[in-house]
Amino acid sequence: MPIVPLFKPPYYAVVFTSLRTEGDAGYASMAARMDELARQQPGYLGFESARSEIGITVSYWRDLESVRAWKQQLEHLDAQRRGRDEWYETYTVRVCRVEYEYDFKR
Amino acid sequence: MPIVPLFKPPYYAVVFTSLRTEGDAGYASMAARMDELARQQPGYLGFESARSEIGITVSYWRDLESVRAWKQQLEHLDAQRRGRDEWYETYTVRVCRVEYEYDFKR
Repeated sequence: MPIVPLFKPPYYAVVFTSLRTEGDAGYASMAARMDELARQQPGYLGFESARSEIGITVSYWRDLESVRAWKQQLEHLDAQRRGRDEWYETYTVRVCRVEYEYDFKR
Repeated sequence: MPIVPLFKPPYYAVVFTSLRTEGDAGYASMAARMDELARQQPGYLGFESARSEIGITVSYWRDLESVRAWKQQLEHLDAQRRGRDEWYETYTVRVCRVEYEYDFKR
């Protein structure tokens, strides 16, 4: 899982923070499928993910239209429904505009 | 590590994504100290953190002034320098304005 390189702001970051239920229940395969599917969406720029006690996934998008289109994508809608039914105790979604950015490389 | 509850946008999210060097080298104790120190800053709203292959930390702030003040806080400046010298192979920082948000609770 690489770090997503910087882009030229403004663009959008969707911060998805979650607390999982116990067990897998098809979660891992669906997560892999959603990763594959997101890459095919217009405006997709990349995503980063980590999980300890909570999970944080940040996906990056060119504009708000591409954020909204991804939320409404049919197979993704089904995954969202299964997420609420089975995989998540709780989650938050924050749609954010990247204002400025910087990085460090050794 | 709880999930940070929703606030009323606009507010700011600082997405810090990193790849660590090997070993601890004082990292864990400094991270705990920075956590403690951040909570005392004006405009601090909360933070979320997870680490797998990469680490993602998202801190939330009332406005850009509080984001900038935290970056310039003296003890935090020292931690940032040690981060570049010792703890991180690479990192990115994205300062983002939260535009809208929603959540789910079982």
